[in-house]
Amino acid sequence: MLSESILRELREVLGGKNVLSETEDLLTYAYDATAAMRRKTPDVVVAPKSTEEVSQVLNIAQKYGLPVYPRGSGTNLSGGTIPLEGGIVLSLLNMNRILEVDTENLTATVQPGVIIQDLNNEVALHGLLYPPDPGTVTTATMGGSVSESSGGLRGLKYGVTKHYVMGMKLVLADGKVIKWGGKTVKNVTGYDLTALFTGAEGTLGIITEILVKLIPAPETRKSLLGVFDDVDKAGRAISAIIRNRIIPATLEIMDNMTLRTVENFTHAGLPIEAEAVLLIEVDGYKEVVEREAALVEDVLQQEGAVEVKVAKDEQERERIWFARRSALPALAQKKPTTVLEDATVPRSKIPEMLKAIREIAKKYDLLIGTFGHAGDGNLHPTILTDERDKEEMARVEKAVDEIFQVAISLGGTLSGEHGIGIAKAKYLPLEFGEAGVRTLRRIKEALDPEYRLNPGKIVLRKE
Amino acid sequence: MLSESILRELREVLGGKNVLSETEDLLTYAYDATAAMRRKTPDVVVAPKSTEEVSQVLNIAQKYGLPVYPRGSGTNLSGGTIPLEGGIVLSLLNMNRILEVDTENLTATVQPGVIIQDLNNEVALHGLLYPPDPGTVTTATMGGSVSESSGGLRGLKYGVTKHYVMGMKLVLADGKVIKWGGKTVKNVTGYDLTALFTGAEGTLGIITEILVKLIPAPETRKSLLGVFDDVDKAGRAISAIIRNRIIPATLEIMDNMTLRTVENFTHAGLPIEAEAVLLIEVDGYKEVVEREAALVEDVLQQEGAVEVKVAKDEQERERIWFARRSALPALAQKKPTTVLEDATVPRSKIPEMLKAIREIAKKYDLLIGTFGHAGDGNLHPTILTDERDKEEMARVEKAVDEIFQVAISLGGTLSGEHGIGIAKAKYLPLEFGEAGVRTLRRIKEALDPEYRLNPGKIVLRKE
Repeated sequence: MLSESILRELREVLGGKNVLSETEDLLTYAYDATAAMRRKTPDVVVAPKSTEEVSQVLNIAQKYGLPVYPRGSGTNLSGGTIPLEGGIVLSLLNMNRILEVDTENLTATVQPGVIIQDLNNEVALHGLLYPPDPGTVTTATMGGSVSESSGGLRGLKYGVTKHYVMGMKLVLADGKVIKWGGKTVKNVTGYDLTALFTGAEGTLGIITEILVKLIPAPETRKSLLGVFDDVDKAGRAISAIIRNRIIPATLEIMDNMTLRTVENFTHAGLPIEAEAVLLIEVDGYKEVVEREAALVEDVLQQEGAVEVKVAKDEQERERIWFARRSALPALAQKKPTTVLEDATVPRSKIPEMLKAIREIAKKYDLLIGTFGHAGDGNLHPTILTDERDKEEMARVEKAVDEIFQVAISLGGTLSGEHGIGIAKAKYLPLEFGEAGVRTLRRIKEALDPEYRLNPGKIVLRKE
Repeated sequence: MLSESILRELREVLGGKNVLSETEDLLTYAYDATAAMRRKTPDVVVAPKSTEEVSQVLNIAQKYGLPVYPRGSGTNLSGGTIPLEGGIVLSLLNMNRILEVDTENLTATVQPGVIIQDLNNEVALHGLLYPPDPGTVTTATMGGSVSESSGGLRGLKYGVTKHYVMGMKLVLADGKVIKWGGKTVKNVTGYDLTALFTGAEGTLGIITEILVKLIPAPETRKSLLGVFDDVDKAGRAISAIIRNRIIPATLEIMDNMTLRTVENFTHAGLPIEAEAVLLIEVDGYKEVVEREAALVEDVLQQEGAVEVKVAKDEQERERIWFARRSALPALAQKKPTTVLEDATVPRSKIPEMLKAIREIAKKYDLLIGTFGHAGDGNLHPTILTDERDKEEMARVEKAVDEIFQVAISLGGTLSGEHGIGIAKAKYLPLEFGEAGVRTLRRIKEALDPEYRLNPGKIVLRKE
């Protein structure tokens, strides 16, 4: 509980209705979309309307020694928005304006509370596209997405959020405001703080304005579905496509368990006998799309696909992608708790990774459905469990440990797109060693020596 | 002069022939390609052959309190490699192996001493391309290029060096080795130190291994030359091309003074009466190239080009690009000193920037030829002068100040691709303000508290 005088100071800066301190208001800020994660109710939730107000909140936080937890829509999957130490949750949802779409320089400037899809709807009016496409695109905010450097379905061809952030305005732990980057592709002035703050999960500063790159929207697109009776063949087909110098916009995989569950949920007509399917979309100029789609079809057949379906129209295309988007919700309804991982490996290691996941499922007697962004090596092994079952949860934890160890031994990384947050902070030494973790800590402490910003995430205080 | 005992320690680690301490050997390390810049002879030049040896050199440097200046081929244009405080020049030229070209994951792993063109020759054997294309591609090293995040002619469509660095191994100021990033497009594990160290000009760590992304080489390409009797029309044509949703691989400009000088130098048949020419190349699939080239031709004509030439064959294409590549050497032979700037503006501001440069040339009575990467707003106003003429050099300095001020007021940046180094360190507050410069200093001091690595560049010690 905060003293009435602190609340009064906050109300003076933000206005009464933008400062929530009643228990029933605070409860929904105690958690985010991460399964089986600690919860903690904040002392207060504030929703500033400008960079200046964010700066004043940080000044008050500094004065009273309160931690500050920035938050967008709370779709985070690594516990990144949970206010572990209470204090202030700083909601950016009141800062939700698209400030500019610059059709000459192909950029957009937005406040952090803008929903990703809203930005894309706006730029589509100009024939433009903001490519990052996380699964939560219709609810997640730009601020959260930039802070997590979120990925999604178009990573293979178009890259992820960090490849589109060109600049930002942000408030540092001491309340000072800095601006970095700009509308030029070329910019080597000073260290690349735009890149450093992108994906920093709000632990180094609070982003209050974002400048992103846009691209001309592709003229057309075509989707294909390759059906395999063997997971390894599907895995090898992924590499074969790239080896043929085709970079599809999207290249997804679903294993048999995911397929069956999704079909049961969507009745989309998926081949439930298949061991795996690949879902592929190529896009661009009409001529290119024709050529690439034909080549992908050939490659899938050469690599032993039992069947290759090419979506004939927008309706068939929609059906394929609806099925893919249903993977997580379909799996999630099978069991009360869904532990969704995102360990990522070089794409040539996908067959090995898929095999390792199957073996881990068997070893720990767990239900694991695997789907994900195979083209960029980003699989989502999804463990279906029940967090009330302590014995099973202990096995889940061991399985997750092993998944990370395998991913790293294959040259991969702990997190492809969900972030480190609380969930993976303890695994960082596995990937970076002590010298690496110490380097992270030095940067954290250089910019936020008192661990005021989102404490308990990524870099933990030295014990 | 270093004591014999320090030299002996270095020789023990590196072998005698990799430790240079004779004055005549040291002299060539006192400068780089930057014009009108301070010089300083180092105390010793060392050329390690491995990460381990680099680490040991840093341990010795730490023990004796010596500064360390990493250096590739010395093509730097902002004084970045000059050993301002003497000490150790650490040449990476002995670490010049291409360690891997991974055709499945489309990556290459190289040591820092590899010449950019050598990497490109190697990956071309696999139908692949490493797109960053600075003017010094045949002499500059990958280590230097990554440390400067260098740009070049293909920035508009393909981005610059920072968009291709996926991971690295590096030695920190304390001699510890860390490894960051990997072969996956998606990687959000910890802060993006790969991005932080890219473009840090060797002030935060010594890069000893680099992992870069490759792309399938474009199938074909086509070049066009648009001739304008008015610089503003040429500037507007640049925006018009992008507005038509075409992103050429290359979109360059040369002004009249550059044209005349280049023609005199190359006899390439350039239109010396023109006020400006645009040189454009589109690339990709055959069908795309045809379509885009035709559209570019239309746009150039609509925007008032006096003439549009389309290169009919490889020979004509080569002639166009030879002329462009000759711009700097041609201008450089007119006067003893060539002050080459790279202030960069959003591309929509190119007409304003060109106008401002003309006015500045007039105001200070200077010869300024302007050419550059117009498509990404990266102009190279080139002041032709003589560093022995103190009075003129004073005017040059004022002109440069004004060019920076205009660039920043137009939403641009101090440096598009040449780096900050010594040359622009004093201008940083203009772009970032005091809070921004303080943030840079905090990061520098967190990783290199004693200013051991490349001191005097980017972030200066607080006075």
